[in-house]
Amino acid sequence: MDDAKKDDARKGSAVPPVVVDAMGGDHAPAEPVAGALTAVREHGVPVVLVGKATQVKEELKRHGGLGEVPVVHAEEALAMHEGALAGWRRPRSSIAVACWLVRRRAAGALVSAGSTGGVVATARLRLRGQQGVLRPAIAAVLPTRPRPTVVLDVGATADVKPEMLVQFAALGSAYAQIAFGVDRPRVGLLTIGGEPGKGNKLARRAQELFADNPDFAGNVEGNELLDGRVDVIVTDGFTGNILLKGIEGASSRQRTGPTEQGAALLGVAGTVVVCHGSADGPDIASGIALAARLHREGVIPAVAGLADDLLTELSSAGGLTIRDALGERS
Amino acid sequence: MDDAKKDDARKGSAVPPVVVDAMGGDHAPAEPVAGALTAVREHGVPVVLVGKATQVKEELKRHGGLGEVPVVHAEEALAMHEGALAGWRRPRSSIAVACWLVRRRAAGALVSAGSTGGVVATARLRLRGQQGVLRPAIAAVLPTRPRPTVVLDVGATADVKPEMLVQFAALGSAYAQIAFGVDRPRVGLLTIGGEPGKGNKLARRAQELFADNPDFAGNVEGNELLDGRVDVIVTDGFTGNILLKGIEGASSRQRTGPTEQGAALLGVAGTVVVCHGSADGPDIASGIALAARLHREGVIPAVAGLADDLLTELSSAGGLTIRDALGERS
Repeated sequence: MDDAKKDDARKGSAVPPVVVDAMGGDHAPAEPVAGALTAVREHGVPVVLVGKATQVKEELKRHGGLGEVPVVHAEEALAMHEGALAGWRRPRSSIAVACWLVRRRAAGALVSAGSTGGVVATARLRLRGQQGVLRPAIAAVLPTRPRPTVVLDVGATADVKPEMLVQFAALGSAYAQIAFGVDRPRVGLLTIGGEPGKGNKLARRAQELFADNPDFAGNVEGNELLDGRVDVIVTDGFTGNILLKGIEGASSRQRTGPTEQGAALLGVAGTVVVCHGSADGPDIASGIALAARLHREGVIPAVAGLADDLLTELSSAGGLTIRDALGERS
Repeated sequence: MDDAKKDDARKGSAVPPVVVDAMGGDHAPAEPVAGALTAVREHGVPVVLVGKATQVKEELKRHGGLGEVPVVHAEEALAMHEGALAGWRRPRSSIAVACWLVRRRAAGALVSAGSTGGVVATARLRLRGQQGVLRPAIAAVLPTRPRPTVVLDVGATADVKPEMLVQFAALGSAYAQIAFGVDRPRVGLLTIGGEPGKGNKLARRAQELFADNPDFAGNVEGNELLDGRVDVIVTDGFTGNILLKGIEGASSRQRTGPTEQGAALLGVAGTVVVCHGSADGPDIASGIALAARLHREGVIPAVAGLADDLLTELSSAGGLTIRDALGERS
């Protein structure tokens, strides 16, 4: 990324804190609070906790950390079974308040282990979607060699249209370039059967759209996820989530599975890191570290800019008319 | 299964052979021929090979097995990149001829490592689909403890309707009962998020259809595939294939992944075992052993009968009107 953008990202006084949704996750507020304290104490990352103040302070006290982390009160919380609807309807939920802090630049980034559907919907509504991007995507980073592999979407958008997969490819490529320094990332489409034309209707139509994309490296099958053959793998959020969790389940014994530090939400105007519902304190702390790094380096706005360039380039090359087809909805 | 059906299955003279598609697979005819010879020599299973006779005999010769396995000539073969269309259009392909042998009862079962789309389409056309079953499903068997888990569909039907998932559940339950002696199998739906209402549109609608099914045990996430919490996991063939291959890829080092012996195709009127395109000789031999066992025990007709009973039961309980909704298409 260029230095101007870095400077932009650093504007303001001291380093702004990462806001942590204390009420999000299967073990909230215990694990988010434990993770926040670890981030503050061991990684030196400034953090703000948002949630039911009494409960959050009780947890801080248990760790002898009362006063170490500022607490912003939020009256409500989304339950783990609640999805997008609840996200839209609860302006006072911990995740909504956390988004508001990011929007107001009182915080630099947001971390939540809450209901993914609720977090994504709230972030889209309150931080706004990125201009021209139809739906956001969660980008998981797999520890492949020699370079990591970015897989998206792993859970933000369960039902996608083929055009959204092309946008996910642009977002993923921009993320691989900016966050991991991959020069000209190669993009693969997750499907069944390696040969062109294989897959379900969605994948087959996406292959047609990708045909003119010079960075498209073809189809990728489920067993090739950890091969490192491509830099970016695109899929819908339903398939991506199931595959990622399947691989985590299968490799849990050896712990060589995907990174456990949470994953960035791409396509919204703000830095959001989503953690597993089952995230424990160290997982949350590692998600906070990722969020702090993404904010410090101005990754999310840079990704937005570069993805926009990539999509414009494809459009003007005539190969793709995503925006013509779908309008300039934001 | 009852003895009458077993007797039915054994009618005729000697044990009928398993027909092997010699031209199917990434390494055909070498690996299918090697697998056929192993099955004959080591497992004592009678086999017939179908394919381009000159090529198949050449391979048999290389293994000193000329004359050990009968060869039926087929002029054409489906390439690995060819799908359903080619399956319908090639009455002289090795897989079409193999189906014909099963249909005529010259063979008891069929094994192919060819293009899954082509094999499934050919089998549906030439063996006929099971009456009342909208689409077939491939049932993989995971080596979970204390009992195996049947996962379907893992690749036969990439685009499904919610009603098909209910049918897959009936087929999978019947298979778990008949092939593995599981009493009253518990069924889970593969989706994202364990809570009711989570998933894409397909999974959410399927959850509504499953609501009245007493054997439905709720949602299963990708990381729970190897937990053994349920006996049958249903999903569409796109997601199932990607997840299964993902888990195989992740666990290839430790070889604790899914069984490598091929998987039964359920919902067609005949015994068909589908192997990986990359199957080697031992994999094919193990697929042949599975096919021989399924035929010997009359599993496929028994599964058809029991699945039909299960669907009728659900229909008459008023909870589901799959057939009313979709007609009695076969």
